[in-house]
Amino acid sequence: MLDFKRTCNCNNLNKSNVDQVVTLSGWVHRRRDHGGLIFIDLRDRYGLTQIIFDPKISLKTHEQAKALRSEWVISIKGKVRFRSDGMFNKNLDTGEIEVATTDLNILSSAKTPPFSICDERIDVSEESRLKFRYLDIRHEKICKNLIIRHKAMLSVRNFLSSQEFLEITTPILSKSTPEGARDYLVPSRIYPGNFYALPQSPQLFKQLLMIGGMDRYFQIAQCFRDEDLRSDRQPEFTQIDAEMSFCTPEDLFIIFENLIKKIFNDCVNVNISTPFRHMSYKDAMEDYGTDRPDVRFDMKLLRLDDIAKKSSFTTFHEQLKAGGTVKALCVKGGADISRRIIDEYTLFVKEFGINGLATVKRTDEEFTTGISKFFPESLQKELAEKTKAKNNDLIFFAADKENRVNQALDHLRRRIAKDRNLIDSKKLEFLWVTDFPMFSYDEKENRLKSEHHPFTSPKFEDIKLLDTDPTKARAQAYDIVLNGYEIGGGSQRIHDYKLQHKIFQLLNLSEKDIQNKFGFFIEALQYGTPPHLGIALGLDRMIMLLCDSDNIRDVIAFPKTQKAMDLMTASPSDISQKQLDELKIKIQK
Amino acid sequence: MLDFKRTCNCNNLNKSNVDQVVTLSGWVHRRRDHGGLIFIDLRDRYGLTQIIFDPKISLKTHEQAKALRSEWVISIKGKVRFRSDGMFNKNLDTGEIEVATTDLNILSSAKTPPFSICDERIDVSEESRLKFRYLDIRHEKICKNLIIRHKAMLSVRNFLSSQEFLEITTPILSKSTPEGARDYLVPSRIYPGNFYALPQSPQLFKQLLMIGGMDRYFQIAQCFRDEDLRSDRQPEFTQIDAEMSFCTPEDLFIIFENLIKKIFNDCVNVNISTPFRHMSYKDAMEDYGTDRPDVRFDMKLLRLDDIAKKSSFTTFHEQLKAGGTVKALCVKGGADISRRIIDEYTLFVKEFGINGLATVKRTDEEFTTGISKFFPESLQKELAEKTKAKNNDLIFFAADKENRVNQALDHLRRRIAKDRNLIDSKKLEFLWVTDFPMFSYDEKENRLKSEHHPFTSPKFEDIKLLDTDPTKARAQAYDIVLNGYEIGGGSQRIHDYKLQHKIFQLLNLSEKDIQNKFGFFIEALQYGTPPHLGIALGLDRMIMLLCDSDNIRDVIAFPKTQKAMDLMTASPSDISQKQLDELKIKIQK
Repeated sequence: MLDFKRTCNCNNLNKSNVDQVVTLSGWVHRRRDHGGLIFIDLRDRYGLTQIIFDPKISLKTHEQAKALRSEWVISIKGKVRFRSDGMFNKNLDTGEIEVATTDLNILSSAKTPPFSICDERIDVSEESRLKFRYLDIRHEKICKNLIIRHKAMLSVRNFLSSQEFLEITTPILSKSTPEGARDYLVPSRIYPGNFYALPQSPQLFKQLLMIGGMDRYFQIAQCFRDEDLRSDRQPEFTQIDAEMSFCTPEDLFIIFENLIKKIFNDCVNVNISTPFRHMSYKDAMEDYGTDRPDVRFDMKLLRLDDIAKKSSFTTFHEQLKAGGTVKALCVKGGADISRRIIDEYTLFVKEFGINGLATVKRTDEEFTTGISKFFPESLQKELAEKTKAKNNDLIFFAADKENRVNQALDHLRRRIAKDRNLIDSKKLEFLWVTDFPMFSYDEKENRLKSEHHPFTSPKFEDIKLLDTDPTKARAQAYDIVLNGYEIGGGSQRIHDYKLQHKIFQLLNLSEKDIQNKFGFFIEALQYGTPPHLGIALGLDRMIMLLCDSDNIRDVIAFPKTQKAMDLMTASPSDISQKQLDELKIKIQK
Repeated sequence: MLDFKRTCNCNNLNKSNVDQVVTLSGWVHRRRDHGGLIFIDLRDRYGLTQIIFDPKISLKTHEQAKALRSEWVISIKGKVRFRSDGMFNKNLDTGEIEVATTDLNILSSAKTPPFSICDERIDVSEESRLKFRYLDIRHEKICKNLIIRHKAMLSVRNFLSSQEFLEITTPILSKSTPEGARDYLVPSRIYPGNFYALPQSPQLFKQLLMIGGMDRYFQIAQCFRDEDLRSDRQPEFTQIDAEMSFCTPEDLFIIFENLIKKIFNDCVNVNISTPFRHMSYKDAMEDYGTDRPDVRFDMKLLRLDDIAKKSSFTTFHEQLKAGGTVKALCVKGGADISRRIIDEYTLFVKEFGINGLATVKRTDEEFTTGISKFFPESLQKELAEKTKAKNNDLIFFAADKENRVNQALDHLRRRIAKDRNLIDSKKLEFLWVTDFPMFSYDEKENRLKSEHHPFTSPKFEDIKLLDTDPTKARAQAYDIVLNGYEIGGGSQRIHDYKLQHKIFQLLNLSEKDIQNKFGFFIEALQYGTPPHLGIALGLDRMIMLLCDSDNIRDVIAFPKTQKAMDLMTASPSDISQKQLDELKIKIQK
C-alpha cells in the first residue's frame, strides 16, 4: 500500500509552494480529460486543488488515472507548478497552482452517488439528501454550516468561561419537567413500570446548581420534545443554557449581548452593535401585534378604535360593541397595490380567523376607494394625522377580537414587507422583549397557565396582584428577538419556596401533584437559595441565522424529518421480544 | 429589598483592599459569637471571607445577625480591615482581612441541613449525599471536582480545535449500535411499536462523518448503557470521542498524548512526559497478566514452565500436562511476609479460580521453605537466575490454565504492591497497549466475538489469517492505560466494505441481520471512504484521576446510584396512563 499520509490539505498550496513535492489526499470532485491530460479537482474539507495526470510525467499514473470517477478517494504525490497562462482561478485559494502527479494511490473507489456533490442541489429531494446524509455533508454548503456551528460552540464556551461560568453536564436520563410539551420516555429495566424522561430543558437542574452554590452555570445542552413538528423544529435540539446567582437582569443582558456579539464576530466576522433595544411585551403587542417583532422595518400597527367609532362603517361598530378592536397598517406608497393582491391579502388574513380587510387609499390629500366613504371629512383629517398617511399610501384595517387582529396584522405586516422588499437582509435587529404577563388563561382547561414557566418570578411590585388579579401580574421575564425570531428567553427565578408553592397552586396543581412532581424542589429551595436568574438561547436557530440558512436541518449533522425519523439509519425501528421482555413492556395492538 | 449586587466574590479581598467599602453575597459557612462580636465565614464557590458584626459599628446589624444560622444566604456591606494581630489565617487567600459589616440583607433563611457543609463527611451516608445533592455540591470537595471537570472539558475543546478537529453533535435519539451492552430504548409515539436507542457511543455516526469528508471530528459525548452497574460505572457516562482521516496511529498517538499533557497541565498543573511507552497486548499479558498493567512498579509475572517441568512438584506436572502454565511473582524483600499473610493471599487468588499459591524464600543464597524441596540444587540456581531472586526475596508460584494464572497473579501483584506500599502515588504512568487480538472465542455462544468492536481493522499483515485462523489475527487497536486503569481505546477502522462484511460474517451474523442492522453502513462505505481511525477516552474516569478521587459519583454533578436511580428527583418514576396510551405501550404484569 502506498503511504497515504498527506503533507498538506487541499487548501494549503499556493504559488509560494511551486516546485515542492507534496502528497495530497481527498475526493475526486470533478474530472476533465483534455488533449491527453487528465485534470482532477481534488477535494477535502478545506478546499480544492487541481491535480493533473500527464503521460509525459508518468505514463503509468496517467493510465491508472483513467479509472478515476467522481467521489473516489485517492492519495497522490507530485510537484507543485503554476497553472498555464490564463488558467488561473481567482475564486480558489489554490487557484494559481496545480500539482503534476507522479504517484497515485487509489484508497477507495465509489459507486455513482445518487446526487452530485459539486453542483447546487436544486432538483435533489430532501428525502434523498437525508437518506444519504454522509454524501450531503460533503457538499460545501452543509460542510460550511457544520464548521460555523463548531466555531460558534467554541466561542460560547470560551466567552462564558471567561465570565466565570462553569459548564456542568446535567442528566439526559432525567425526570419529567412539565413545561407544556410531551416528554420522550425511557422505560427502566430495573424498576419495571417506571420511566426516565429525556429533558425538555435542564431547568430544574440548573436551579439546583444555583442552590448548590455553583454561582454561574452554562451548558450547551441537548433537549427533547415529543411534539408534532413544525418545519423549523427538531425532536432533539440544542440550547445554550445558563444560570447565574446574585445578579440583576441588567447584568445578564450585558453578558449575553456580548456573547452574541462575540459569536457573530468570531464566526461570520459581523459586528453587532450593543446594547440591544428593549421593548415591553405590552408595547410589542400594541405596535407589532406580536411578542417577537421584526423591527428591521417600521409599518407599526395603529390602534384606531376612536376613529372607527366615529366612522359610519357598521362592521367596526359591531366589532367594537362585541369588545373587539380596530387596528390598521399604513403601507407607504401602497396605492399601487392591485385589487388582486388586496384580495390575496384578504384571503391570507382569514387564516388567522378574521373576516376581512378594509382599505382606503390616500390620493390628492384625501382618502378614496374602499371604505373611505364611511369617513366624513373631519374624520379623514383625524385618520391622516393618526396614521401619518401621505399621498399614495394605502391603509389596511382589521376589526375583530384583539388577539385575532394582532395576529392577522402581524402576519400581514411581514407578508407585505417581504412582497414589497422593505427588509434590508443584511440588517440584524436584536431586541429584548420584557415584562411578559405571568399567566395566560387557558379557556379549554379553564385555568391559568404559565406564560414562561412556573419557576419565573413575578415582578416585585406585582406580587400582590397574585391574590387579586393574577392575569395582570407581570413576570420578570425577557425574550431575545432577532429579526422577528425569538432566539432565546429567560427570567428571574422564584427563590422563595412559599411563593413557588403559591404559583403552583395558582396553576391549579393539586397538593398531591405539587408534592409528587416538585416536592424535592420545594424542599431544596428551603436550604438557602440565592436569588438567581437565567436564560436559554436556541442554538440551532441562531446557527441558521449565522449561516443565512432557512432550513434547520441544514445546520444539524444528522437531523430527523418532520416525522421524527432518521432516514439514514432508519430509526426508530423495531426491537426484539427479548428487549421488550427485559423492560417488562408490551406493545398495545 | 436591599440591593444584593456584590462588588466582589468571597475570595477576592486581601490587604490591598483594606479600607474599601465592599458588598459580598454568600452562604453562612461558620458562625462564632465572641465577646459580643459575631464572626461569620461567608462562603461562595470562590472562597471564604470573614465578616464581623460589631454592635459598636452597627447595633441594628448586630441585632439582625443574631438570627443567622448555617447556610443562610445573605448579602452584606462593610469596610475591609486587617484582622487583629495573630488572627491571620495563612490557609486562606483572604486570611489577612475581615469585613466589618454595616448593612445586612438576609436573602434566604435555611433549614438545618441534614449534614454539615464545612466538615469532612465521614459519617454521612452516600444515600443522604445523593438525595440532597444540591447540598453536597456546596462542599468544597465536590465543588472543586466540578470546576476541574469544567476546565478539563474546555482544555479538550480548545486543544482539539487547534488541531483542526470539529466538534459535531451526533444524535441521542439514535439507532441501536450493538457493542455488547444493553441499550436504553425510547418508544416512538409516531411509529407505535418502534423504538429509538440512546447511543452506547457515537461510533457509526463518527465513521459516517469521516465518509462525509469531515476529516477530523470530536465530541464530548454522553453515552448510555443499561447494565447492572459496577461501582465505577454510571448508566450515563461521558467520553471524549474523536475520529480522523488520512492518518496513521502514530499521528493519533502524538495528538492524544499532547491532549492529555495539556489537560493535566491546565487542570492540576502537573507535567506529563511524552511520548508514552508502548507495549503489545502479548507482552502485557505475558509480563503483567492483564491488558492494562500498572507499570508504576516492577514485579513482573515470570513464566516458569521449563523450570516447573524439571522440578519434582507433581501439581506443576499435572497442570502442565493439562495444558496449563506455571508463572511466578518474585517479591523483593518478601521473606518477611508472614504465614498468615500468605494464607490470606492464597484465599484471595482462589477468587480467580486457581487452587492455591506455592512459595519459596531465598535465604543465605538458597531457596528454603514452601516447595523449595522440590527443586534440586542445579534447578535452584536456574530458578535464581530466571527470577533474579536475591536473599530475603519471596517467590509466589501459580499453576493453572493460563488465563486463570494471569488473572490471579495480576490481582495478587497489585494487592502486594498496595500492601507493601510499592507505588509512588504521585506517579502517572501512561501506556499504549497495542496489537490486540481481533476476536475472542465465546464458549457459551460458540462463536467469535470482537475483542474491540466489529469496525476495527485487522493489521494489514494479518488479514489473510481471517480465512485460516481468525483468533490469531491481530487488530490495529490500541488502548491507553494510566496506572492500571484503561482510560481509553481506539483503532484503525475498516474502510473496505467487503472486509467489513466479512467481519460481520465471522461474527456469525446472518445476512438478514447484517442488512437490517448495518445495511445502510455497508452501503455508505461504498461511496468513497477515506482510511480513518479514532479513539474514545473515558472522561469520567480521567476526571477521577485528575481529582484524585476514587468515587466516580464525586466527579459528576447529578450521578445515579448503582441501581441507576436519581435519589434527588426520585427518577425513574411512574407515568400516567395517558402517556402510556400515547406511546401505545402497556406494562407487563
